[in-house]
Amino acid sequence: MDERVWRRKDLLGIAELSVPEIQAVLDAAESFREIAARPVKKVPTLRGKTIINLFLEPSTRTRSSFEIAEKRMSADNINLSGSGLSLEKGESLVDTARNLEAMAPDMLVIRHAHPGVPQFLARRIETSVINAGDGAHEHPTQALLDAFTIRQHKGRLAGLRVAIVGDIEHSRVVRSNLHLLRKFGAEVVVAGPRTMMPPGIENLGARTCYRIEEAVEGADVVMMLRVQLERQGRTRFPSIKEYFGLFGLTADRLRLAKPDVLVMHPGPINRGMEIASEVADGPFSVILDQVASGVAVRMAVLYLLAGVKEAA
Amino acid sequence: MDERVWRRKDLLGIAELSVPEIQAVLDAAESFREIAARPVKKVPTLRGKTIINLFLEPSTRTRSSFEIAEKRMSADNINLSGSGLSLEKGESLVDTARNLEAMAPDMLVIRHAHPGVPQFLARRIETSVINAGDGAHEHPTQALLDAFTIRQHKGRLAGLRVAIVGDIEHSRVVRSNLHLLRKFGAEVVVAGPRTMMPPGIENLGARTCYRIEEAVEGADVVMMLRVQLERQGRTRFPSIKEYFGLFGLTADRLRLAKPDVLVMHPGPINRGMEIASEVADGPFSVILDQVASGVAVRMAVLYLLAGVKEAA
Amino acid sequence: MDERVWRRKDLLGIAELSVPEIQAVLDAAESFREIAARPVKKVPTLRGKTIINLFLEPSTRTRSSFEIAEKRMSADNINLSGSGLSLEKGESLVDTARNLEAMAPDMLVIRHAHPGVPQFLARRIETSVINAGDGAHEHPTQALLDAFTIRQHKGRLAGLRVAIVGDIEHSRVVRSNLHLLRKFGAEVVVAGPRTMMPPGIENLGARTCYRIEEAVEGADVVMMLRVQLERQGRTRFPSIKEYFGLFGLTADRLRLAKPDVLVMHPGPINRGMEIASEVADGPFSVILDQVASGVAVRMAVLYLLAGVKEAA
Repeated sequence: MDERVWRRKDLLGIAELSVPEIQAVLDAAESFREIAARPVKKVPTLRGKTIINLFLEPSTRTRSSFEIAEKRMSADNINLSGSGLSLEKGESLVDTARNLEAMAPDMLVIRHAHPGVPQFLARRIETSVINAGDGAHEHPTQALLDAFTIRQHKGRLAGLRVAIVGDIEHSRVVRSNLHLLRKFGAEVVVAGPRTMMPPGIENLGARTCYRIEEAVEGADVVMMLRVQLERQGRTRFPSIKEYFGLFGLTADRLRLAKPDVLVMHPGPINRGMEIASEVADGPFSVILDQVASGVAVRMAVLYLLAGVKEAA
Repeated sequence: MDERVWRRKDLLGIAELSVPEIQAVLDAAESFREIAARPVKKVPTLRGKTIINLFLEPSTRTRSSFEIAEKRMSADNINLSGSGLSLEKGESLVDTARNLEAMAPDMLVIRHAHPGVPQFLARRIETSVINAGDGAHEHPTQALLDAFTIRQHKGRLAGLRVAIVGDIEHSRVVRSNLHLLRKFGAEVVVAGPRTMMPPGIENLGARTCYRIEEAVEGADVVMMLRVQLERQGRTRFPSIKEYFGLFGLTADRLRLAKPDVLVMHPGPINRGMEIASEVADGPFSVILDQVASGVAVRMAVLYLLAGVKEAA
Repeated sequence: MDERVWRRKDLLGIAELSVPEIQAVLDAAESFREIAARPVKKVPTLRGKTIINLFLEPSTRTRSSFEIAEKRMSADNINLSGSGLSLEKGESLVDTARNLEAMAPDMLVIRHAHPGVPQFLARRIETSVINAGDGAHEHPTQALLDAFTIRQHKGRLAGLRVAIVGDIEHSRVVRSNLHLLRKFGAEVVVAGPRTMMPPGIENLGARTCYRIEEAVEGADVVMMLRVQLERQGRTRFPSIKEYFGLFGLTADRLRLAKPDVLVMHPGPINRGMEIASEVADGPFSVILDQVASGVAVRMAVLYLLAGVKEAA
């Protein structure tokens, strides 16, 4: 692993990362992966570093994953969430961030409903900012853990055919994955209802189609997206049953893919909505591998950012 | 202490435990008790272990007790509670648990409103599961800390006469205590309003009665149960005053017990409702000893479960 | 630094502290300040100590500041806040505190909406109690960090002229600062609308006036208070615009002060309400220094209280 490649203060999105930078994260993650299998899952790497987890949208898995990564690296962390925050007292987000910065944290992990917030803060504070999801913009650690998981099973990303199916328009997961997969030379097909397909998605290098069968056919990887019931009005498709009927990943449809296809999902899954239970739990599913990869990838990101701060 | 007796992955309930298993917990707790009195209240026993506290019902004392036990044993812990959880996004509890498991925690401490949830999860994940209270089913660490407290004051459980008074039907504390006390040869009398007495409670080995005086008479231990106003409609008894009049533990009623009686309560207490203030704060009360025992007993449980995982 | 001066179990308010006691905190804070600049921001001073943060009013900055101070000193801490607390099950605050005490914490940091709560608890439990703000009564660590910040920039407190402007009546920050500044021989002028000026404030040693210009004139330090929209009905002044017009700190008004004036604010600030943005971000502002001082001062308080407990 060559951590000298990484010179960024922040991890804001995949769009701006170079292939060697992404490679540096994936390689570092490789070396952190086995820590989860040790009886003592702890390394002193971030001892005495302070990390603030500022989650302004609900999150179980991403927050837990960051927290576990931080603690396994011996960092001190504190958690701030939407409720009980000074933001509710009318303070601006920049003021909240500057105030937190004055307490000399080393990193700020932020999730926010509005796209661009992590970028906005990163320019205004010296603390390293890690984007843990900003609206429908980017979710870089998700794309990194997806890439890590694919590489683990396939040995490479280049030349793979990846289908991404679901609500393409509202997904930060799609955007970050598209950037990453295209940089590494994978072929990406996105499929979803016309009402969930953003104009201009082809400009990011994706081929679009409106039938899941067409996307899945010949795929090395099928990434299903979560139907985010909590984020949209229910009018974008007539019913769950109809959505599943048209875009759900069933065992039948999966047979159109390559025989060694990987089934992925960023979670939390809606069984019987975007994915059939037998597929989610089936032999091709690497959904739980993704979760495990998440901890390793986040440890890698924390490690690389801390190195830059140290050198500064 | 003989920890080789303990071979279970999980602590789900008292019902399935053998006397030597319970003894192993109580003996281990004995050795952890003095840690709370040290200037440095910390041992390295669980260094590098990850523990997830998943409390899906509100809890101050049980959660705090587990958290303190975990930190004093140097474990890394993360807390997840009802709000902000993926469960709210429609994910099933098993999926949440499997996802957490993929992050390689060593133990999952769970409180849930529905009986059987910890058992259900324990069969589906390899992580050790500790039941921190499941509906009206079991609350095993409560019964263990109660037994620890009694043993500390009385030197034994066998042959003691224990009265449990209050809402017998809705209490997981009663169920866990009944199992434990009967296994150790204590005699148990339960008393409460007829509307709060479940059919078939005698099958668990309890004698039932409907007057507190009858239950308390000659008792070595009186366990008062909390009137759980937040858990029931208010129609089970006419008024607080009437409940206290019929079933409240007063100094007068306590005189019917043995002269060295212990007064216990799982907390939080409702003064003037199920127990008079002078009794709660009086010389026979060991209510705060119970709380102190709780930390030692939970350290013991964490220690024994970690040992089994280690050996696996 | 001479920590033998400090012999109190608790930090409840500034009113009862002697000048040498306050000096002991400020001197200790001086020695802790540089820890925030180290690559490894961690000292083992409070290893194995248990600290409970009980915040029954919302707080970002004070809670974060305490948490960071605790972790940098290697203490184990647990956080309890209003929601999910046994208090909601009808338990009295004293019972909650006694129950927490039974788990052998070393310190309890408490914020509460009612004045006097920390004092009330401190008399009833042996655990050290730190007042993190009680109603409109005291907020001692705020006054200590303010004094630390002033001393850092001015080298002294004696003889300085300090203006405090805003809602004098509802401010615990004013009360604690008044006590401290007067003990050290600073001259204090308070200014605010008549509806926000408590009767008898002169008895605490402040000169009162009703125009910001009069207060700011010749001041070495201007402390602006937050308009606590969330704490009062909106009828105390006609509108935000009118408040800012009459009492907002503008660059023009600041020119009335000494040329090396310090502008302070306990935060969170309301830009354009009590303070103009250009002043908050301007060359005289030490608002973010205050936040940084807060961590050092809280480390000092924890250190001194732990020393007393140790010796006991």
